[in-house]
Amino acid sequence: MALTPYQQLEQEFRRLHAFRGALSLLRWDAAVMMPRGSADVRGEQLAALETEHHALLTTPKVARLIERAEAGASQLEDWQRANLREMRRQRDHAIATPPSLIARLAKVCARAEVHWVEARKANDFKLFAPHLAEVVHLVRDKAALLGQARGLAPYDALVDEFSPGISTADIDTIFKALGRKLPGLINAAIELQAARAPLPLSGKFSVPKQKQMAVDVLKAIGFPFDRGRLDESEHPFTEGVPGDIRITSRFDAGDPFSGLLGAVHETGHAMYDLGLPQEWRDQPVGRDRGLALEESQSLLFEMNLCRSRAFVQYLRPLLEKYFQISGPEWQEENVYRNLIRVRRSLIRMDADELTYPVHIMARYELEKRILDGALAVNDLPEAWNTLLEQRLGIRPTNDLEGCLQDIHWAVGHFGYFPSYAIGAVIAGQINDAVRAALPALDEQLSKGQFDGVLGWLRDNVHNLGARLPVQELMKQATGRPLTAAPYLRYLESKYLES
Amino acid sequence: MALTPYQQLEQEFRRLHAFRGALSLLRWDAAVMMPRGSADVRGEQLAALETEHHALLTTPKVARLIERAEAGASQLEDWQRANLREMRRQRDHAIATPPSLIARLAKVCARAEVHWVEARKANDFKLFAPHLAEVVHLVRDKAALLGQARGLAPYDALVDEFSPGISTADIDTIFKALGRKLPGLINAAIELQAARAPLPLSGKFSVPKQKQMAVDVLKAIGFPFDRGRLDESEHPFTEGVPGDIRITSRFDAGDPFSGLLGAVHETGHAMYDLGLPQEWRDQPVGRDRGLALEESQSLLFEMNLCRSRAFVQYLRPLLEKYFQISGPEWQEENVYRNLIRVRRSLIRMDADELTYPVHIMARYELEKRILDGALAVNDLPEAWNTLLEQRLGIRPTNDLEGCLQDIHWAVGHFGYFPSYAIGAVIAGQINDAVRAALPALDEQLSKGQFDGVLGWLRDNVHNLGARLPVQELMKQATGRPLTAAPYLRYLESKYLES
Repeated sequence: MALTPYQQLEQEFRRLHAFRGALSLLRWDAAVMMPRGSADVRGEQLAALETEHHALLTTPKVARLIERAEAGASQLEDWQRANLREMRRQRDHAIATPPSLIARLAKVCARAEVHWVEARKANDFKLFAPHLAEVVHLVRDKAALLGQARGLAPYDALVDEFSPGISTADIDTIFKALGRKLPGLINAAIELQAARAPLPLSGKFSVPKQKQMAVDVLKAIGFPFDRGRLDESEHPFTEGVPGDIRITSRFDAGDPFSGLLGAVHETGHAMYDLGLPQEWRDQPVGRDRGLALEESQSLLFEMNLCRSRAFVQYLRPLLEKYFQISGPEWQEENVYRNLIRVRRSLIRMDADELTYPVHIMARYELEKRILDGALAVNDLPEAWNTLLEQRLGIRPTNDLEGCLQDIHWAVGHFGYFPSYAIGAVIAGQINDAVRAALPALDEQLSKGQFDGVLGWLRDNVHNLGARLPVQELMKQATGRPLTAAPYLRYLESKYLES
Repeated sequence: MALTPYQQLEQEFRRLHAFRGALSLLRWDAAVMMPRGSADVRGEQLAALETEHHALLTTPKVARLIERAEAGASQLEDWQRANLREMRRQRDHAIATPPSLIARLAKVCARAEVHWVEARKANDFKLFAPHLAEVVHLVRDKAALLGQARGLAPYDALVDEFSPGISTADIDTIFKALGRKLPGLINAAIELQAARAPLPLSGKFSVPKQKQMAVDVLKAIGFPFDRGRLDESEHPFTEGVPGDIRITSRFDAGDPFSGLLGAVHETGHAMYDLGLPQEWRDQPVGRDRGLALEESQSLLFEMNLCRSRAFVQYLRPLLEKYFQISGPEWQEENVYRNLIRVRRSLIRMDADELTYPVHIMARYELEKRILDGALAVNDLPEAWNTLLEQRLGIRPTNDLEGCLQDIHWAVGHFGYFPSYAIGAVIAGQINDAVRAALPALDEQLSKGQFDGVLGWLRDNVHNLGARLPVQELMKQATGRPLTAAPYLRYLESKYLES
C-alpha cells in the first residue's frame, strides 16, 4: 500500500533525525576527543552535514508533502497532528534562513570567535567590537527573515528558535517580577549569611576520585551508562541522542562540588532527553520542548534537588568514602550552607543561584538594545558595566570581567540568554508541583532515591516531548500557567529561612 | 566567472569527502567510545549518511558534469585528469550498486554477523550457513552488476572495488609463485629455528606502560599526536582522515610486543594516509591507492622494518625503561628470534609472517569457488579443513579453528582477503627499493630514526595518491612491475640465514 503524505514525511524526518545525531556526535568528539590540530577538518564535516540537513529539510518535496498532509490533518491522531505542526515549524525556520545567510553567519561567527579569544587575551573589547558588529548585522537580517516567516517581531523570532512558545511578553512579565524581588532578597540573604557564616571547606580532592563519586551519584539518579557516557571537557555540556547520550563535566582538584554539580546539571538534561517519548524518538514531536524547558530540567536537579539538606545527607557518606573528610566543617549543615552561599560576583558562570538571574536579565536588556540599534556595539562595555552596577551593586573594572566574558554573542546566539533564567523559573514552579505530589521527596533524596521525582517528571514533562506549547505543558503539569511566584517563594524560603 | 564542469565536480566531491570523514568518525566512535547499548542508534546514523553519500554521488547532475568534463579533458592537467578518472570510477561503482541492493545486503549482513557470533559461541557452522548463503547470493548479484559496469569478470570486479588495478590474473601469478616456494621455506625455517630455539620471553607487562612505550615508538616514527589519536579496541584498526587520523591497538599484559606491533602496523596505514598529496586531500585522486597498497604500508612497518635486528636494537632500552627487563632471554638477538618465530597454526590473525600468506591463499581459493557455485556453502567446513591440511600440514578439528574464524564473509567482504597477501608482496618489493636507496637504513632504524624511509615513501608512494594505477606506481617506485621475487628473496634471507 502506498504511504500517505504524512507517513512519507515521517520517513523524511527519520533521516533528518539520524543526521542530527551524527552532527551531535561530531560536536561531542570535537570537544572531548579530537586532537587539537583537527579543527579545520571537523569544521568542513560539520558544515557539509549541516548544509545537507538544511537541503533535505527544504526540498520542494517536503513542502508539498506538508501541504498535502495538512489538507488531510483531520484524519490524523493528536500526536501526529502535533508532529506535523513541528515539522512545519522546522521547515519554515529552515526556509526562512537561506543557506547563503547561514554560511555567511557561520563564517563571520567563526572569525568573531577567534577575535573574541584574542580580545580576551588582551583584555580589550575594542579588538572584538568590529567583528561583533558584523555578527549583529547578520543576526538582524536573520531575525527579520525569521520574524516574517513566523509572524513574530524580530527578537521574538530569535527567542522562539531556542525556546518555542516563549514570547518577549512572557519574559518581560517574569523578569519584571524578578526585578522587583531579587535585589531585596539578595541583600537580605547576604546579611543573614554573614551573621552565621559557614566554616570554609578546603583540601585536595583527586579528580579521578571525584569522577568516581560523580558516577555513583549519576547511577543513583538513573543515568544509563550502557547508553551514555560521562567525560571531561572545558565546559560541561550534553550532546547525543536518547539512545546514546553524552554528558561532560569539569573537575577542580580544590573543590569537590563544582564538578559533581556540573555533572548533575547535565544529567538533568540527559534524563529529560532519555525520558522523551520513545515511540516518537526520531520525529520532531519527540524532541525536547526547547531550551528554557531543557534548562528547567538541569536546574531542577542541580539547584532545587541537589543543593538541599536532603541531598547533602546522601552525599556526606560518599565524601567520606572518597576523600576521608572529617572535622566540624564537614558536618552536613555546614556543607549545605557552603553550597548555598550567596555572593555578588562579576562572572555569570560562577554566580550562585540567587544572583544568577540578575546577570541574565542584564544581558537580555543589552542584547535587545544592541539588536534594535538603541545601543551601538562600541558603547557596550560602558553600558554593561553601568547596568551591572545598577542591578547588582558591583561594577566590572575591565572587559574580561564585563562584556567579554560570554561566548554567546560572538557565535551569533542572541535570544538565547533568557532561557537560562526562564528555565530557573520553570524549575521553581515544577519543584512546587513535585513536592506537593511527593511529600516524602526529601526523605527519598536523603537516601539517594530519585525514582519518585523522575517518575513524576517523566509522566508530566518528559513523556510529552514537543507535543504541547510550553505554556500548555506547564498548565497541565502544574495546574497553572507559568509565573514567577513559586520560584520566588522557593528562593525566599531557601535563602531567608530563620 | 562561472565554474567549469570539472571545477563543479571538485566541489561536489569535496562534500562527499566531508561525508566520508564523518562516517569514519562514527565508525571509530562505535568501536572505541560508544556505550554498548547504542549500536542501533549508530546503525541508523551510518545508514542515513551512507544513503545520502550514495545519493549525492549518483545524481544526474554529477553524471552530466562528468560527461562534460570528459569532453573537455584535453584542457585539464595530469592530476586533474587522473582525478576525473577516479571520480568516474567512484560514480560508476555507485551507479552499478543501487541503494536497494546495498540496503538489502546491509540488512542480510547485519543478520549474518549476529548469527556468525552465535555460531562461534556454539562452535557450529551450521547455525551460520543459511545466513552466509543469503550473503553469497546477494554478493553474486553485486559482483555481476559491478562487473558489467566496469567490464570485468564478477570476482575481478569485487577485487577491483577494494584494490583498483589488481586483477585476478595478477593475483594468480603471484600466488602461484608463493605456492611454489612457501611450503619449502616454511619447513626449512621451522627446522632451522628448532635447532636453535630462542629462550622464551615471559612476564607481566602493565598495559598503561605498554601504551606509553607505543606512544614513544609512534612518535619516533612520526605519528602526529596533534592530528591523531591512539586508543584501544577489540581489534586494531585505522579510521579518520589525514587531518584527524585515529588508530587503535590491543594490548596484552602477557606480551609486550603484540600491542606495540599492532600499533606500528596501524601507524603504517596512518603515515600513508598522512602522506597523501595535501592539495588533493578532499578529492578522489588524493585518496589511497586501494587496500593492497594500504596493507603494503602497514606491513612494511610492522614486518620489514620493525621485526628486524635493527629495530630491536632501538627497542631494547625502551623495554628496559618501562619493564625493567633483564637476563639473557632479553638480549637483543634472543628478542629478535622471538619476534620472527615461525609456527604452523590455525588462526590467521595469530599467524606469523611466513605462514600468513598460506592462510590467505586458501581463503582466496575458497571464496572464488563459493561465488562461482563450485563449492556449496554447506560444504565449506570440510573444504576449508582439507585445503588447510594440504597447504599447511595442519587440520582444524572444529569450526572455530576453521571457517568460523573470520568475520569478512559474514559482512559481505569477498575479494578482500587477497589484498593482505598482495600487500605483503608489494611491501617486499618496496623494501628492496628502499634499502637500495638508503644503505644506512638499518643504522637509522637502530636509533629509532624513520625520517629516511618515510621521506622515500612519501616521494615514491604516498605523494602519488590515487594518480597512477598500482602497477604503474610500482614501476615508477621500484623500477619494475609487481612480482613475487623480491618478497620471496626477503623471506628467504630473513628466515633461512645461516
